[in-house]
Amino acid sequence: MIVLGVDPGTFQMGVGVVVSSSGDLSLAYADALGPKRSSKLPERLHYLYERLLGVIQEWEPSAVAIEEPFVSRNVRAAMAVGQAQAVAMVAAARHGLPVFGYAPREVKKAVTDYGGSSKEQVQEMVRVLLGLTWLPEPTDAADALAVAICHINASREAELIAGE
Amino acid sequence: MIVLGVDPGTFQMGVGVVVSSSGDLSLAYADALGPKRSSKLPERLHYLYERLLGVIQEWEPSAVAIEEPFVSRNVRAAMAVGQAQAVAMVAAARHGLPVFGYAPREVKKAVTDYGGSSKEQVQEMVRVLLGLTWLPEPTDAADALAVAICHINASREAELIAGE
Repeated sequence: MIVLGVDPGTFQMGVGVVVSSSGDLSLAYADALGPKRSSKLPERLHYLYERLLGVIQEWEPSAVAIEEPFVSRNVRAAMAVGQAQAVAMVAAARHGLPVFGYAPREVKKAVTDYGGSSKEQVQEMVRVLLGLTWLPEPTDAADALAVAICHINASREAELIAGE
Repeated sequence: MIVLGVDPGTFQMGVGVVVSSSGDLSLAYADALGPKRSSKLPERLHYLYERLLGVIQEWEPSAVAIEEPFVSRNVRAAMAVGQAQAVAMVAAARHGLPVFGYAPREVKKAVTDYGGSSKEQVQEMVRVLLGLTWLPEPTDAADALAVAICHINASREAELIAGE
């Protein structure tokens, strides 16, 4: 099972591809896509869209897992999150891939067993779970890998339940 | 000058193409793009993206004008607006078209001279301004035409100021 995880942002978008093979997790790809900060929003979104299409074409994931950040009251932040999510969703749908959304607490719990863990704790656990000797960086890329791992765990649990 | 106006929504997206030629406005195209309501969000967004690309390819506008709805506190609504806007922005950027955003009050003021006018008043004025014998429908399509007209007016004013 190959999963593309996405940590959505309109200035920087974390992407991570994780391969799960007979219970073993391994890193295929991780990056933080960064359009020019001076570019206008439509150009930034288009850049991220094209880069995501490239990642999907190269790694051929079977699913896309997107972190759905918690936005309490900040309407501008919510719009930006919606914009970044949409880019990932359209890229996934273009390749007929199913999209799964996970809340930050779910993602953190999936990799660290604790929903309130820090970015650094997530980063360290992603390193351990993928058997890396170096820390996945930047944290946006580590977050994207964590979302992918979260989806792989959720799918396994769903399979176990279905198989009972 | 050919302008594509967009009234963004994730269930229904108004699109309207207006041609401005030596001061005369005319309707080229108007529609409300409606993906299947039962489709999931990624599929709906992808459908809207593909349809927008089709409209741009067919009518070759030189600019895309997007209404930027006012969202006060509803974070979910803000995310949906962001998602729909992103689809239009990526479609525009893919064709190298500049994107302009207009607030609802600006759009209403541009066509009815009053920022607080109703959807029906906007619809009727769009009909008059484009010299149509029938009301542009549904209102989402009329709104999209109004955004395009708003951008054409704003561009003219900018030209007049630049030419002084």
